[in-house]
Amino acid sequence: MEIFKKSSDMRAWSDAIHRTGETISFVPTMGYLHEGHLSLMEKGKDLSSALVVSIFVNPTQFGENEDLGAYPTNIKRDLELIESKGANAVFLPDRKEIYPENYQTYVTLEHLPNHLCGLSRPVHFRGVATVVTKLFNIVRPDTAIFGAKDFQQLRVICQLNRDLNFNINIVGAPIVRESDGLAMSSRNAYLKPEERESALSLNRSCLKAQKMVEAGENRADVIKSEIQKFIESFAHTKIDYISLCDPNTLDEVQKVEKEALFALAVHVGRARLIDNIIIKTA
Amino acid sequence: MEIFKKSSDMRAWSDAIHRTGETISFVPTMGYLHEGHLSLMEKGKDLSSALVVSIFVNPTQFGENEDLGAYPTNIKRDLELIESKGANAVFLPDRKEIYPENYQTYVTLEHLPNHLCGLSRPVHFRGVATVVTKLFNIVRPDTAIFGAKDFQQLRVICQLNRDLNFNINIVGAPIVRESDGLAMSSRNAYLKPEERESALSLNRSCLKAQKMVEAGENRADVIKSEIQKFIESFAHTKIDYISLCDPNTLDEVQKVEKEALFALAVHVGRARLIDNIIIKTA
Repeated sequence: MEIFKKSSDMRAWSDAIHRTGETISFVPTMGYLHEGHLSLMEKGKDLSSALVVSIFVNPTQFGENEDLGAYPTNIKRDLELIESKGANAVFLPDRKEIYPENYQTYVTLEHLPNHLCGLSRPVHFRGVATVVTKLFNIVRPDTAIFGAKDFQQLRVICQLNRDLNFNINIVGAPIVRESDGLAMSSRNAYLKPEERESALSLNRSCLKAQKMVEAGENRADVIKSEIQKFIESFAHTKIDYISLCDPNTLDEVQKVEKEALFALAVHVGRARLIDNIIIKTA
Repeated sequence: MEIFKKSSDMRAWSDAIHRTGETISFVPTMGYLHEGHLSLMEKGKDLSSALVVSIFVNPTQFGENEDLGAYPTNIKRDLELIESKGANAVFLPDRKEIYPENYQTYVTLEHLPNHLCGLSRPVHFRGVATVVTKLFNIVRPDTAIFGAKDFQQLRVICQLNRDLNFNINIVGAPIVRESDGLAMSSRNAYLKPEERESALSLNRSCLKAQKMVEAGENRADVIKSEIQKFIESFAHTKIDYISLCDPNTLDEVQKVEKEALFALAVHVGRARLIDNIIIKTA
């Protein structure tokens, strides 16, 4: 497995792969890998002849008061896991490689970020769109795989891929969960033992919202208010948002018709956790 | 010569060219071609085995009160000129192809646009950076050639190319002038016969500023004030800006040391004209 720290080396490798007629799947990560990431790599191996994984904790997608400095890291273990999944190359740049002196170019979306996580994390999706644009140009993948836990990120990247003509096959992969239902996240490492039960409130809210719709409730305000009470019944929780929205535009819906995205963000202790589910009416 | 209206067809052609090991030079234009554009194509032919030219009057780089609706066009003549220069393909998309419904992604630079033309054209360089990003992804050139008349645009594109890791060889080509010194521009078509003499004030200002420096004057305010008086002595002129700046950062300089960019924008009748010169001290 090749490990590249320089963009030019990564790009040269990808160009050489393409010249042989092979295709490249790409899984961008911020490291501290879990089963969710590994499922993306497995999907990537299925979809292309070569797999590239990147590890880069992208500073521009963190707000000033967020957890950039505390973000967990374990490169040695990450590299072992990536190699075990049969990746062909890892792109492992440092910050100066991605944002050199006098860096000043950013990719922004006008609508999709003004919803859900974007409302409490105003620079987040600018950072995501920018680094993904750069990584797409460095790695030159044919296919790129993103987890559905970050549903809004997946939507942003699909839009970016279309709008900027990257022509990459963007694949969303289902949320991977712990046995108790907690969505896998590197930020679960922040949870204290006594907060674990509270963290389960997110997945349980998703299932509860789904059940309400299946039982015939379609009024978004009724569902959201019920879920709010439910989450507030857990200790250590502070709700950021609870949303029922159109899965494409992310605009809030008044009524659940055909299908809707139920998504939420909840602070549990110092971890900000997210989860979501696509709910279809019966 | 191939003519492509769809991004997917253009991209497929470029990918096929690259698979044969050939390289692509790219000259993006807004059409209504003049000798300046043709010089870029000649340079492109020299630098790669294949040449692609695009014609697209990009709406996002025009401000609300600018001349988008009036921008001159002559596609038939343009295609003849492009073919005469030995281009292999023309990309000729319509607006919906470049900005489809629900388009929302823009590329912005934080510093370079806050100078020169960017000050009076606040959305201009966002539009330029966005369309060039898209065209780079559609055409996939190895080399792209831009004229030095739009000096700030050339700087923006070099920065964008570096910041977003396009890894394209960006080439600037010298200003091409009419025999009387007027810099070639599609917007010269707006000039009435009685405005022509006034339009020459731009090039003459460049030469005058250069002479002042050669004669030992290095104070930017003295030079700019002299040039201002000179331009105001011509009828039909309205100065947008007169600048002496660092050619890399575009920051205004107090003194001309080693080299500086002298650049100006002047409205002559309904034409907004620009010109520039790199001035080196003796």
